[in-house]
Amino acid sequence: MNLNISNRALNTPASPIRKLVPLSMETKKRGIQVFHLNIGQPDIDTPVPFWNAVHSYPHPVLKYGNSEGMPEFIDWLIKYYESINIKVARDELMVTMGGSEAVIFAVLATSNPGENYIAFEPYYTNYNGYSAMGSVEIRPVTMYPEDGYRPPSKEEIVKKIDDKTTGIIVISPNNPTGTVFTREEMEMIGEIAREHNLFIISDEVYREFLYEGEHTSVLDLKGVEDRAILIDSMSKRFSICGARIGCMVCRNKELIKACIRFGQARLCAPTIEQYATKALLEWVEPSYYEEMRAEYKKRRDIAIEELLKIQGVTCKTPSGAFYIMAKFPINDIEDFAQWMLTDFAVDNQTTMIAPGPGFYGTKGLGNSEARIAYVLKEENLRKAIKILAQGIETYNRLKTK
Amino acid sequence: MNLNISNRALNTPASPIRKLVPLSMETKKRGIQVFHLNIGQPDIDTPVPFWNAVHSYPHPVLKYGNSEGMPEFIDWLIKYYESINIKVARDELMVTMGGSEAVIFAVLATSNPGENYIAFEPYYTNYNGYSAMGSVEIRPVTMYPEDGYRPPSKEEIVKKIDDKTTGIIVISPNNPTGTVFTREEMEMIGEIAREHNLFIISDEVYREFLYEGEHTSVLDLKGVEDRAILIDSMSKRFSICGARIGCMVCRNKELIKACIRFGQARLCAPTIEQYATKALLEWVEPSYYEEMRAEYKKRRDIAIEELLKIQGVTCKTPSGAFYIMAKFPINDIEDFAQWMLTDFAVDNQTTMIAPGPGFYGTKGLGNSEARIAYVLKEENLRKAIKILAQGIETYNRLKTK
Repeated sequence: MNLNISNRALNTPASPIRKLVPLSMETKKRGIQVFHLNIGQPDIDTPVPFWNAVHSYPHPVLKYGNSEGMPEFIDWLIKYYESINIKVARDELMVTMGGSEAVIFAVLATSNPGENYIAFEPYYTNYNGYSAMGSVEIRPVTMYPEDGYRPPSKEEIVKKIDDKTTGIIVISPNNPTGTVFTREEMEMIGEIAREHNLFIISDEVYREFLYEGEHTSVLDLKGVEDRAILIDSMSKRFSICGARIGCMVCRNKELIKACIRFGQARLCAPTIEQYATKALLEWVEPSYYEEMRAEYKKRRDIAIEELLKIQGVTCKTPSGAFYIMAKFPINDIEDFAQWMLTDFAVDNQTTMIAPGPGFYGTKGLGNSEARIAYVLKEENLRKAIKILAQGIETYNRLKTK
Repeated sequence: MNLNISNRALNTPASPIRKLVPLSMETKKRGIQVFHLNIGQPDIDTPVPFWNAVHSYPHPVLKYGNSEGMPEFIDWLIKYYESINIKVARDELMVTMGGSEAVIFAVLATSNPGENYIAFEPYYTNYNGYSAMGSVEIRPVTMYPEDGYRPPSKEEIVKKIDDKTTGIIVISPNNPTGTVFTREEMEMIGEIAREHNLFIISDEVYREFLYEGEHTSVLDLKGVEDRAILIDSMSKRFSICGARIGCMVCRNKELIKACIRFGQARLCAPTIEQYATKALLEWVEPSYYEEMRAEYKKRRDIAIEELLKIQGVTCKTPSGAFYIMAKFPINDIEDFAQWMLTDFAVDNQTTMIAPGPGFYGTKGLGNSEARIAYVLKEENLRKAIKILAQGIETYNRLKTK
């Protein structure tokens, strides 16, 4: 008899994006500036109307909101989706604590312990955590850097499905690779879902971060209305990561009802932030997204330019999100990422990256890859990658001694 | 082959506190004022220093915080616990999205699917939701109104334990009954936990709402340091239910580490609210709690006085929290609670209550009970219970026709 931590807790990995944070706090204490290329934390100012609403929040009591979201904020979301040509009814939507909670609820509502999901690796690292929390398995379908991280053929994907598979998780634009799935690829996924009776959990939080081509939402697909679950977040597009506001949209009203029951158990999403995000409605215009896209596109091109200057680095120009998955001339990227924080600095500055393995479900993959978040302004971004380049050189020189 | 909602979603009940909200919204649309005795939403103003901090939040970007909580807010929490004579180290604590998330994480970290917990019913209704989400079972130990909702003997409790039992959930002061467990009762629970190697999940969010006697924290018990998990929330004591800020404290550092891994997967608790709650440190003084206690004690006495005027009602005066579990001369309290919203009003006013069955794990219990939250000011509280009394009379007259 033992006082045991549960298997699901043991199976929940530390986030590759965040596990080095305690180390980086130590680094900063030593007076060293850390450039954060590890985390998708935009440095763009949160829009002023959001702050105006926060700064003038008028109610004297900070009350619970409704579990499914505050009615006025749901109205706002319906109008937001209208603006991108997606019609949503009130009972097809639920407000969540960030996109994170939306994925957790979707996983819990569509699977029982011991069942599994298909996901295209590399994928958003926290899917590993959500599936462990739900006692389900991810069956990874590998996308290779050489193919520009595109999904393989239908045949290859279907091989991974068994009688315990309940869904497919898609993220487009992809985190960490920036891949945007084409309409054909999304339709192939829809076809597989219909043929094998699977749910589709489609994470589209980077919808507006699109530099080439067209974005296909899972809600644009025909014939999957009962099984398509859209995951969304306000964090990135409005630079409000700390607000913890996202949502889930699904035409299958039973599924939304089930998730609202989960929602009732956790009471509600934060009230002030729903109130403040609502204030963005009258304010947000196409030019906002255009400027944001232009800024990130510029950063993407700078990051690619600087990365390709490093001998032995391979990466392709992604068409969406604000990440680049790059392959480095390093054998053990986990060790290297730590070393950058503990042992390396140039003029009291160093760079933090998110090691690749955490974005894979298959053990042994990603040991030379890392995710680079291009969320810094030009000067710092160039500096951060140049420091990374010097770090690689020094690290390899030391290790081969 | 079917596109199925999961068992855990089907097993997650609608909250008895919140499931009638859509009905009550309809009621309000018809121009009827609803007195909310159903939900623990204090009407006391959120302290001004909290609002001052919100209204002057100084940072231009609303960033992610650390997954375990913002360092300054953790400092604040450590000082708060110091003020109630509990010493907490930084790595024994984690900030959560309300007490809700703390319970969910504690359940997930201490049990595998198919395992079970002991809980004393009636208990906080959302434990049913959290256990369903975690695919675990609650094995209820019944506390009876006639015993003043006190736990039975050790012998009775131990009967419910089997080899799949991993923990005991305690809530003191209790929601919905207001029972405060004595030191002897808490020590008995500690003893059972040691003897049967169980975790103790101790929900103490109503600590300050104590009108008689002494509160014993699970962290005051000796010899259970490795297994005692304190669940806490800022919602009630500072009237910030919509902030979604709580925490978990445990001397077992492996357990906290595991929960922080869950926390990394969901990124962080809301940033603005951690910043604003921190502002309460210099401000909060014993007199704040004393005034709050005096106000709720007055309300408690008014509620009991008004409830006992209703023929056929039985209830005892609770010593903590701000709820009364009362037995009404009604056979089907679920139907009655709905009817109050859809068919009854006095001068365009009606009263909403939380039906009893949702607070029980044992099917068939609670059909004549309801939870009354005494969170309204004197005049409204009296009026709300008087309307309830008239409702009971009318309902019973109509039903026996």
